[in-house]
Amino acid sequence: MMALVRLHLVWCSRTLPRCPMSGPNRALAVQASATAQWMLKQEKVAELHRILASRSCTLWNSSLLSKRALSAASASPEEVMLTSKRYGVQRLPFSYLSDSDLAFFERLIPGRVITDPDELRPFNVDWLQSVRGCSKMLLKPRTAAEVSEILRYCNKRNLAVTPQGGNTGLVGGSVPVFDELILSTALMNQVISFDAVSGTLVCQAGCILQNLNQYLEEHDFIMPLDLGAKGSCHIGGNVATNAGGLRLLRYGSLRGTVLGLEVVLADGSVLNCLASLRKDNTGYDLKQLFIGSEGTLGVITAVSILCPQKPKSVNLAFLGCQSFSQILGTFTTCKGMLGEILSAYEFMDEACMKLVESHLKLTNPVTGSPFYIVIETSGSNSAHDEEKLNNFLEHAMASGLVTDGTVATEDKKIKVLWSLRERITEALIHEGYVYKYDLSLPVERLYDLVVDTRAHLGTAAKNVVGYGHLGDGNLHLNITAESYNHSLLDAIEPFVYKWTARYNGSISAEHGLGFRKKQYIQYSKPREAVVLMQQVKALLDPKGILNPYKTLPASS
Amino acid sequence: MMALVRLHLVWCSRTLPRCPMSGPNRALAVQASATAQWMLKQEKVAELHRILASRSCTLWNSSLLSKRALSAASASPEEVMLTSKRYGVQRLPFSYLSDSDLAFFERLIPGRVITDPDELRPFNVDWLQSVRGCSKMLLKPRTAAEVSEILRYCNKRNLAVTPQGGNTGLVGGSVPVFDELILSTALMNQVISFDAVSGTLVCQAGCILQNLNQYLEEHDFIMPLDLGAKGSCHIGGNVATNAGGLRLLRYGSLRGTVLGLEVVLADGSVLNCLASLRKDNTGYDLKQLFIGSEGTLGVITAVSILCPQKPKSVNLAFLGCQSFSQILGTFTTCKGMLGEILSAYEFMDEACMKLVESHLKLTNPVTGSPFYIVIETSGSNSAHDEEKLNNFLEHAMASGLVTDGTVATEDKKIKVLWSLRERITEALIHEGYVYKYDLSLPVERLYDLVVDTRAHLGTAAKNVVGYGHLGDGNLHLNITAESYNHSLLDAIEPFVYKWTARYNGSISAEHGLGFRKKQYIQYSKPREAVVLMQQVKALLDPKGILNPYKTLPASS
Repeated sequence: MMALVRLHLVWCSRTLPRCPMSGPNRALAVQASATAQWMLKQEKVAELHRILASRSCTLWNSSLLSKRALSAASASPEEVMLTSKRYGVQRLPFSYLSDSDLAFFERLIPGRVITDPDELRPFNVDWLQSVRGCSKMLLKPRTAAEVSEILRYCNKRNLAVTPQGGNTGLVGGSVPVFDELILSTALMNQVISFDAVSGTLVCQAGCILQNLNQYLEEHDFIMPLDLGAKGSCHIGGNVATNAGGLRLLRYGSLRGTVLGLEVVLADGSVLNCLASLRKDNTGYDLKQLFIGSEGTLGVITAVSILCPQKPKSVNLAFLGCQSFSQILGTFTTCKGMLGEILSAYEFMDEACMKLVESHLKLTNPVTGSPFYIVIETSGSNSAHDEEKLNNFLEHAMASGLVTDGTVATEDKKIKVLWSLRERITEALIHEGYVYKYDLSLPVERLYDLVVDTRAHLGTAAKNVVGYGHLGDGNLHLNITAESYNHSLLDAIEPFVYKWTARYNGSISAEHGLGFRKKQYIQYSKPREAVVLMQQVKALLDPKGILNPYKTLPASS
Repeated sequence: MMALVRLHLVWCSRTLPRCPMSGPNRALAVQASATAQWMLKQEKVAELHRILASRSCTLWNSSLLSKRALSAASASPEEVMLTSKRYGVQRLPFSYLSDSDLAFFERLIPGRVITDPDELRPFNVDWLQSVRGCSKMLLKPRTAAEVSEILRYCNKRNLAVTPQGGNTGLVGGSVPVFDELILSTALMNQVISFDAVSGTLVCQAGCILQNLNQYLEEHDFIMPLDLGAKGSCHIGGNVATNAGGLRLLRYGSLRGTVLGLEVVLADGSVLNCLASLRKDNTGYDLKQLFIGSEGTLGVITAVSILCPQKPKSVNLAFLGCQSFSQILGTFTTCKGMLGEILSAYEFMDEACMKLVESHLKLTNPVTGSPFYIVIETSGSNSAHDEEKLNNFLEHAMASGLVTDGTVATEDKKIKVLWSLRERITEALIHEGYVYKYDLSLPVERLYDLVVDTRAHLGTAAKNVVGYGHLGDGNLHLNITAESYNHSLLDAIEPFVYKWTARYNGSISAEHGLGFRKKQYIQYSKPREAVVLMQQVKALLDPKGILNPYKTLPASS
């Protein structure tokens, strides 16, 4: 009964050449090769080929100019239309930067005030190259005390401020809309402490997610979150946007894993709630206000976070399905049979795979299916885990839920397969302009939106693709066009939001509202809630200097 | 390799007589008997004896007069000194209840307005019989709309209101201090929906935790939290106090599992954030404000909560250790070897066990150790789980971490063993007056506080005992005396709080601050945080009518 069932499965262990980058960078260290295969009834054997990522690695402690670890889009920053023009935004009556302001900041953080237009350029444009501001100054504090001085001054002077981490956001939340000062967390990149008994990491907000994970792996722990932008995104930005990502299914959201925060408020006061306790019911849990508030209520300067032990055994199955209902059936089966070791359940449609194949030259090992699933298991006993996974795969195949697939147990091969899912965002960028939607929906309805949007847009769109974190009910709907086109936008919005609202979904599952979606909040939140949010904003930032034009619609 | 290792372990499966109560009530359905035993080197065989709980079962949908499912303390309500007298509290200038108020409420919810002093008595006193108010009226709304009408009226009339669930709180948060109206959630006890695909339960706030768990078990799911008061406590109260309990180690806190709330604000407006989505980043997560705010910011009327699948296999090990450092060593070992199936790691000292033996006549199956551990595993594959547990126990025993123990795999036997841990609170009540402390501390320091407090108090205390959720760094320190004694209180407080603050602990891990601890918040939170909490309170409840005298110290 306990023996591994390998009837139709062949696990092979061909070793990959050692990757020159030792870090856990799936996006960069993609080195595809033959991976462990399991042959199904169809006797299909697929091959994965080595793809060398063209971009250099973002180094620990040199994150100032770090970029999202994905290829740059073709358009250069100059070509992106100013946000204020494209969307017709009116500048709020903040002060304009003066010479005496510059002198103040130069005295406060000498050598860490950037005003050179060339240097400023990448910080004024988002990674998607969809929004552009015209900030004249970037500040790079190293401590909460410096952030406090900066905000106290800006609040007094009525200068608007945009906090910026790795600038990997997808809703235009991390770049200025007009001339807001950019407050970068890039130099606040120190690990403060790690306690291997409790698994609590305390670090500054500018630490890059991937670097933290690498640091923890040396102590046999991992970060409780993982996302495609890990090579560039900052933990402070992750927390400020309540990032979800690939491990949420297993380790839960940041609302549960973040134990404490240090935050500088708009008036410069420092709120030190940097506790490292798993439980703390002393008064209101203020840190929750800042998680997911996108820098509009305060600037997160340090984070205390509970990290899980590094799983001793990780397996990945990349499977093909003939229909979305089979994806759902496989999910239910897999939740029951893999139970506590299930750590990710991702899906993507055929159109997504075509994009990563054509634009990134990745090879899909199980071609020919309209849908694909990535299932990851993480556990403490490899024999048990493999047995559970084998039993599940046997069952899924025998019942016709899954028609084809490949399994990887070795770290590098797992990364190769993960890249097929993780690099979809990057592949999309090569299409031209991308209209991105990130929706929570009842899982049964998840893919209907892709089908309906495709039908609704017809030939107006170049591509309409769907993928996402099915285990969390989270769809990433992406619509591409050669370039930005306002009439296409009008055809998409509010169509997508109305559709989502009809099924009580959320118009932002994990990306936030940022600049791009703030005016659509009413599709997911009742008026009373929006009013209360505006009151909270007014309480914490009465002058509205923190990340203006973002997250909430203006008070009526 | 995969075979079960049973060298020194004997698992026996003697069947217990069927419990007359089919529900999962550990506290009530305690039917101890011989349990599965494993004999260690010492060859000790212990017996557990059947204890019939003396209290009747709290029935589904008849929770109005429900009590914490534990024995009542000896003192009758009349004997408890009025809170205002004992603690010298000044009444705030709220209005007094008038005949026209009574007429209004009688019209609004006819037959559900209690004014009879005898009927009111148990709602004016907390379960610990440590605080007592003198409310003249209890209201039992059935819907959020009725709660809305009640609060709108009270806010206009400046009448203070104490929301009350199962009245099982341990910090005096759920009973009035003076004559506040009591707003009971007892009749809001309906399940609204359950979705077996996502595991999302939506229900009214007055549903009793145990009943919800029983309901879910029929669908092969469980509630993500479990606590000793489950037979009486309401889910609304659990959420309002951010209850922790026995499953937090595995399923995380309510901040991650609560998906949505319906809340009525002080002015009567209804905030419907009752989403059932695992991810929703549309604006600020307002529901977090109400989780753990102890009814001071709004009245929770409905809850949407993510429930895990019922584990297919549950095992429990009850172990004896010779020192607290062995408890810590066992914890580290067990986290590594049990990994993802570890669902509880509780500890208690010898003094606790003596109390449950003497007051409740429970039998400790592994006597003679200064410390005891309860380890629970929950998994999807019993063979795998038993093998992991066996391997761990073998190792723990061979390395001398554990000296004695017993293991249970059958539901009823598991409940018998759990009762030894869960009924400590009840046993303590029999001692006389209990000074209760619920602290978060670094695990290495956890028991030092018990030792130091014992030394500090000397013979002034009857008993000083320590137990708690070691896996969460949560100590329950309890000090008993024949009766309430102010000089003993002065010897304990702020000694315990100062000690806790010295190690950056929290003076309330999971119980909240309520009435009893609000003035000590500064030991765990900086001044800036307390001021911001007071501002949030003023924003949401400008007249301060909701649960006054609780959670926060008065604004200076």
